[in-house]
Amino acid sequence: MTVYDWGSHPPEFTVIQMELNKIIISENTAQQVIVLKESAGARAFPIVIGLSEAIAIDRNFKAQKTPRPMTHDLVENVIKGLDARLERIVVTDLKDRTFYAKLILRRNGKTVEVDSRPSDAIAVAVLMKVPIYVEERVLDDVISDPSPEPPDLAPDEDEEE
Amino acid sequence: MTVYDWGSHPPEFTVIQMELNKIIISENTAQQVIVLKESAGARAFPIVIGLSEAIAIDRNFKAQKTPRPMTHDLVENVIKGLDARLERIVVTDLKDRTFYAKLILRRNGKTVEVDSRPSDAIAVAVLMKVPIYVEERVLDDVISDPSPEPPDLAPDEDEEE
Repeated sequence: MTVYDWGSHPPEFTVIQMELNKIIISENTAQQVIVLKESAGARAFPIVIGLSEAIAIDRNFKAQKTPRPMTHDLVENVIKGLDARLERIVVTDLKDRTFYAKLILRRNGKTVEVDSRPSDAIAVAVLMKVPIYVEERVLDDVISDPSPEPPDLAPDEDEEE
Repeated sequence: MTVYDWGSHPPEFTVIQMELNKIIISENTAQQVIVLKESAGARAFPIVIGLSEAIAIDRNFKAQKTPRPMTHDLVENVIKGLDARLERIVVTDLKDRTFYAKLILRRNGKTVEVDSRPSDAIAVAVLMKVPIYVEERVLDDVISDPSPEPPDLAPDEDEEE
């Protein structure tokens, strides 16, 4: 199992590297599903996301080029234009069936964390080929949640709310 | 008429400030329309954009808040997180019926230009409350274009191509 510890969140915690395992796009519904699976383990969980983010993740995963920058290309171009780099993205929280994530940027030896929906963070991670992590307690929560309606249906699509 | 000249594009050129004049969203079609109109004049032209960008522009124009950052909020958060600011956006080109734009960022007294589709640039401009400009020759082209199929139908939605 690939684990990684770093500062800024006292006292310490563990994040687990995940792979994008599945992108399930159904053009007929607003909500799409991606599945993240442990890189070095069997645990996996789905995240429900919006259609345009799912299409972006799929396109970035397949490294399809578009004539002009798409929205997540714009995020990449801003990061690079400002001389920063994306180190990783982390799914940091699950609250009220909603996932939260962060982009972890580095610039001049300084770390900058930027809040993001997981869908955008994963779209940018796949585009910029950086690792996807999840905080271990989020993974524990999402795997063990005993509620009848599974937390993996937490919408990552605020447009639909 | 508000005009503005700046360096980096020799020898000199003029950009004209525009206002977001209309957002026309039709949920039944993939292509939506926004209209930019001269801030201090009568010239106006439409840009065809994608649905998710149109929804984003509309939401940002109405200053509607979402529980989590949407994709253009992510762009704003990256810009601010990296201690830069957005000065303005500029529609810089019209080629083969397709518009091109740039975000003009400033960081530590240095200007950084980032390529963008006009739809994303306008969504970010409306969100961050910065002026929208168009290069005068683009405005001249789009107003005077004598082709039977008007250039205002240049798609700003590469996903649909």
